[in-house]
Amino acid sequence: MRSGRSKKEGVSIRVLRIGHRFVRDDRTITHLCLVSRALGAEAIMLEETEKELHDTMDEVCQRWGGKFQVLEEPSWKKVVLVAKKEGRTIIHLSMYGLPLADKLRELRTLNRFLVVVGGPKVPGEVYHLADYNIAITNQPHSEVAALAILLHELQEGKELKRKFNESRIKIIPQERGKKVELTY
Amino acid sequence: MRSGRSKKEGVSIRVLRIGHRFVRDDRTITHLCLVSRALGAEAIMLEETEKELHDTMDEVCQRWGGKFQVLEEPSWKKVVLVAKKEGRTIIHLSMYGLPLADKLRELRTLNRFLVVVGGPKVPGEVYHLADYNIAITNQPHSEVAALAILLHELQEGKELKRKFNESRIKIIPQERGKKVELTY
Repeated sequence: MRSGRSKKEGVSIRVLRIGHRFVRDDRTITHLCLVSRALGAEAIMLEETEKELHDTMDEVCQRWGGKFQVLEEPSWKKVVLVAKKEGRTIIHLSMYGLPLADKLRELRTLNRFLVVVGGPKVPGEVYHLADYNIAITNQPHSEVAALAILLHELQEGKELKRKFNESRIKIIPQERGKKVELTY
Repeated sequence: MRSGRSKKEGVSIRVLRIGHRFVRDDRTITHLCLVSRALGAEAIMLEETEKELHDTMDEVCQRWGGKFQVLEEPSWKKVVLVAKKEGRTIIHLSMYGLPLADKLRELRTLNRFLVVVGGPKVPGEVYHLADYNIAITNQPHSEVAALAILLHELQEGKELKRKFNESRIKIIPQERGKKVELTY
């Protein structure tokens, strides 16, 4: 975690989830949405969404503030191609990719990203359309964890201090116990 | 992510999960186990375990190498007290805690940890028994993500380069596509 650099203030990150099975991955999808929002992404795009997920995320945004979008985009390829046109760098998270440490310096010089998070089945084409295939370890673990570490490192830890506007609930950090400010 | 320091080589991290509801949290628990293993912890302790979880993790260790234990410990308090006796620092991850950045320098001077990951219901006593209550943002997101970022920062990124002994399957990182070495 580093501090003192201002260059990353204008970073824009969107997240795309590919190849998930909705029912089984229900909690994983919710976690991916929450992590994307909490760690500074502005939107997540999913091949399928359900009302319950939108309701959960709308409620989180109303209570905890900030702007975050959950978008249904049936064609992952369209999302990737549009992002490329917008000048976004496509980072595909895959355990088969190159270690984050090898590419981080290069990635930190960039500001606009589409982060692609693979599910159990990812089409081979994704590896070729991506600008970077990046592994957060070459061990099996969790796409939620991989996304978190990538977002954290891309933003050099600044995302942990992010302010969320117009929140109704705000935690006041404590050494012990809980302190919450509510505004209604 | 930093490199070049050797002080963290001897780090020993165990993880304790408190207050989970097994059925609902099934996938979350599996992800917590996989992340703990992949990011350098040596064991995870759970209040309840199921055969399927042990089978999954045994298979991962056999195929991907390294040593990692999943232990059933019905009394979280006993685990915390034993860890204290062993000289471990207890870090409780909680959205109500102090920002990681405020305590990271201090935490990095230490080597032996028990990381406590809260579930939906955490007894208030945990906040008082912990040496540190640490927040990975004060926003709602995912205990899997919070654990990943803590493990990553405690070990200064070194965990991403960790070698796993006696693996049957090994990924050779690639810029595009997949390359796997199998040994049987």
